[in-house]
Amino acid sequence: MDALLLIAHGSRREASNDEVRELTRELVQKSKRKFSIVECAFLELAIPSIPEGVTICVQKGANSITVLPYFLSAGRHVAVDIPEELGKAMQLHPQLEIKVAPYLGSANEISSILVSLSKQAA
Amino acid sequence: MDALLLIAHGSRREASNDEVRELTRELVQKSKRKFSIVECAFLELAIPSIPEGVTICVQKGANSITVLPYFLSAGRHVAVDIPEELGKAMQLHPQLEIKVAPYLGSANEISSILVSLSKQAA
Repeated sequence: MDALLLIAHGSRREASNDEVRELTRELVQKSKRKFSIVECAFLELAIPSIPEGVTICVQKGANSITVLPYFLSAGRHVAVDIPEELGKAMQLHPQLEIKVAPYLGSANEISSILVSLSKQAA
Repeated sequence: MDALLLIAHGSRREASNDEVRELTRELVQKSKRKFSIVECAFLELAIPSIPEGVTICVQKGANSITVLPYFLSAGRHVAVDIPEELGKAMQLHPQLEIKVAPYLGSANEISSILVSLSKQAA
């Protein structure tokens, strides 16, 4: 089974983490043709951690995980920290296939969304 | 004249700030019907600051500015810090009209973009 794991930074403010969890629930609906499991995990400050999130997917039956970095820029978190955490997860689950999707900020559609938001200013 | 001011957090890593500047250049093209001026500013760690970004818009002839928070969650930065910085800018330019657009993470289209990114995983 294929799993999608949305990875966010994590915040001391629980409402921000809840926004990520809510988005994850939206993704369940929107990606159910491709992914039978959709979970989220946090780099720091919130749970589950990345290795914990991977383990949750495996316990639900995943043998392949697509990781989706919910980050705006290709900084240290995307380039170094997330791969490091995924490395820990792979030691726990050596048979697991892990693929990494491009981070959110790299999507071509971002500028169109910004234009659309600019029209909702008040 | 109407200006669009994209506000990002700012990073110690200059390449991340450059990603925001590059996105701002994209917005110039995509929003030119509505905004004759498009600039970016940073909450911290990079220049221009928010008051400086507002001043740049005013110097280019803006009498109305639409602020667009390039943030993923409605945390302290969006709720408190950006309004505080805009308050400073309004003291400098009391005649200026400032409107604030919804922050990026609140856009309905985000989950569809994530689904599309998940298909590009490698």
